[in-house]
Amino acid sequence: PSALNLAVIPGDGIGPEVIAEAVKVLQAALPADVTLTTTEFPFGAGHFLETGRILDDSDLDELKKHDAILLGAVGGDPRDPRLKGGIIERGLLLKLRFALDHYVNLRPTTLFPNVESPLANPGDVDFVVVREGTEGPYVGNGGAIRVGTPAEVANEVSVNTAFGVERLVRYGFAVAASRPAKKLTLVHKTNVLVFAGSLWQRTVDRVALEFPDVAVDYLHIDAVTIFMVTNPGRFDTIVTDNLFGDIITDLAAAISGGIGLAASGNINPDGTFPSMFEPVHGSAPDIAGQQKADPTAAILSVALLLDHLGSVDAAARVSAAVSADLAARGSAPRTTAQIGDAIAASLT
Amino acid sequence: PSALNLAVIPGDGIGPEVIAEAVKVLQAALPADVTLTTTEFPFGAGHFLETGRILDDSDLDELKKHDAILLGAVGGDPRDPRLKGGIIERGLLLKLRFALDHYVNLRPTTLFPNVESPLANPGDVDFVVVREGTEGPYVGNGGAIRVGTPAEVANEVSVNTAFGVERLVRYGFAVAASRPAKKLTLVHKTNVLVFAGSLWQRTVDRVALEFPDVAVDYLHIDAVTIFMVTNPGRFDTIVTDNLFGDIITDLAAAISGGIGLAASGNINPDGTFPSMFEPVHGSAPDIAGQQKADPTAAILSVALLLDHLGSVDAAARVSAAVSADLAARGSAPRTTAQIGDAIAASLT
Ligand SMILES: CC(C)[C@H](C(=O)O)[C@@H](O)C(=O)O
Ligand SMILES: CC(C)[C@H](C(=O)O)[C@@H](O)C(=O)O
Repeated sequence: PSALNLAVIPGDGIGPEVIAEAVKVLQAALPADVTLTTTEFPFGAGHFLETGRILDDSDLDELKKHDAILLGAVGGDPRDPRLKGGIIERGLLLKLRFALDHYVNLRPTTLFPNVESPLANPGDVDFVVVREGTEGPYVGNGGAIRVGTPAEVANEVSVNTAFGVERLVRYGFAVAASRPAKKLTLVHKTNVLVFAGSLWQRTVDRVALEFPDVAVDYLHIDAVTIFMVTNPGRFDTIVTDNLFGDIITDLAAAISGGIGLAASGNINPDGTFPSMFEPVHGSAPDIAGQQKADPTAAILSVALLLDHLGSVDAAARVSAAVSADLAARGSAPRTTAQIGDAIAASLT
Repeated sequence: PSALNLAVIPGDGIGPEVIAEAVKVLQAALPADVTLTTTEFPFGAGHFLETGRILDDSDLDELKKHDAILLGAVGGDPRDPRLKGGIIERGLLLKLRFALDHYVNLRPTTLFPNVESPLANPGDVDFVVVREGTEGPYVGNGGAIRVGTPAEVANEVSVNTAFGVERLVRYGFAVAASRPAKKLTLVHKTNVLVFAGSLWQRTVDRVALEFPDVAVDYLHIDAVTIFMVTNPGRFDTIVTDNLFGDIITDLAAAISGGIGLAASGNINPDGTFPSMFEPVHGSAPDIAGQQKADPTAAILSVALLLDHLGSVDAAARVSAAVSADLAARGSAPRTTAQIGDAIAASLT
């Protein structure tokens, strides 16, 4: 008998709806001897607009007491001037990734049976993107001078460290080694971003020596977008930086049925801090509260959570239940709760 | 009667083959009273491996004497250690773009009739990407310390100036205003790259006031990749930075029939320096010298060249000839020269 102490951040828009289903499925999937305790946190754009608070150090301290975090979606109306400049995204989502050292941003892509792809001939799509989560152009180390004048200069700095790149690359090789295809593709733009590119390439080359059974190749980020729509089956494990990973995981989601199905884990593999699991999609304020949102991405994020916590069997059962549910889906629309109920019921 | 003094850089791999057809078509398309003079320059990976020279200041001076530059493709075997780190790409291609102040990188995307898209339902695809060419993460302002040690830090700096962003954005609005749909989409990642993003967004907002008939919207780079495969018809004129433009133009090419059809212009709108026209594809060393390469992208680059030089009619005739040739293509393969011959013949 053990306990799972989960922090839940439903967030904004459709976040609360999809999270309700994710928790339902988590409860159904957990072994009977595990006691689930959930604590809700109100963070998000709505909370910020009401209270002026996004995420304090004391909030972080509270979150750190949990075994894992499940997040729905955060973000308000993009036209709201009070939410300009990604204040919620950076103050909440990115702050969590950085403060909790989520250096692995894990985003699997599978084209499930019966799911339509916008590609005419997608073939078998089954790969995972291991995106760096705490470095690159996301570090906020830019700056600007003479703002608002004709002489303005605005710089953004991508910071890449041997420490940060190596731990991510090692994780990527471990993922690749655990998969049947055992193939790792480094994605970067080494012909232009030569300093960062060289560090990434040298690190992959060196760590590769320890994984002789993993085949390694390299693609420029621009070329990746081509293969993603012409031959996504060529990918198995992609290792890449924070920004390139952001870009290709949205594309990967799009070709495999949409971000409504894309799950992600913000992982601290060391276990120093709780990892955080969230669907890739946003808060979709336009359909919020209408039970129109597809909770599948949130539910698949639960599978990643279970896997991360060592409940490998439960994780596999959730994935299989989602796959079966998708395979059986017809054209009749179901509510968010109906989808969650069906998947949860199939687990018990 | 006038003269067109063209510098030609056939380059490596399939470059010379496709350029031969492009020049053939240019010759056929030019008004009878225009005398075409071409001067070939040997630059490329092959030239570098033979001579150790990539592009000197004296070479630049020679090139500057021409009305325009037509470039095939440059780049050798990527596994050749002598060509590591994008030495040719940066020393030749990017050096030309920077030295000749090609601040507009113009990349139209059209899905021509009879051309297959990897998308099941591409719909009408007809948009143009106005990519910045002289700033952003391409400036080479990065650096690294403690290289090769566990304490290495490698930084890349994206430099964005009001000067550089405004001239590009103005060009973008002029392009949008000249097109039927009159819609401009700024593409960036303003929620993360806040300094550069803010400069881009403010510049677009300000210039937009001068173009009241152009509709303006904004998309994050990650969201763009989704729409590119689910609804490319939503795009008309995209304005974006150097790196984002690099990424989405390869994706745009892929969804509209492949980089074998994608043309580009590296444009100095001020006319201070010659502009340069090149297919988006690379040198494809694996099929070089076999007359297997499709010269269409190079030929469409000639249309951009003619347009830039003010031969608007001739440009339109080349585009129409390409469109007709594509529409008539069957499954029987033709040689590079056969395609060029057919398109040139249809112009006379
Ligand atoms: C919301 C945004 C800051 C975030 C990112 O860029 O990482 C999102 O796009 C994602 O991929 O999780
Ligand atoms: C070869 C490379 C430097 C170049 C770029 O990144 O601009 C190419 O990809 C392009 O798009 O023209």
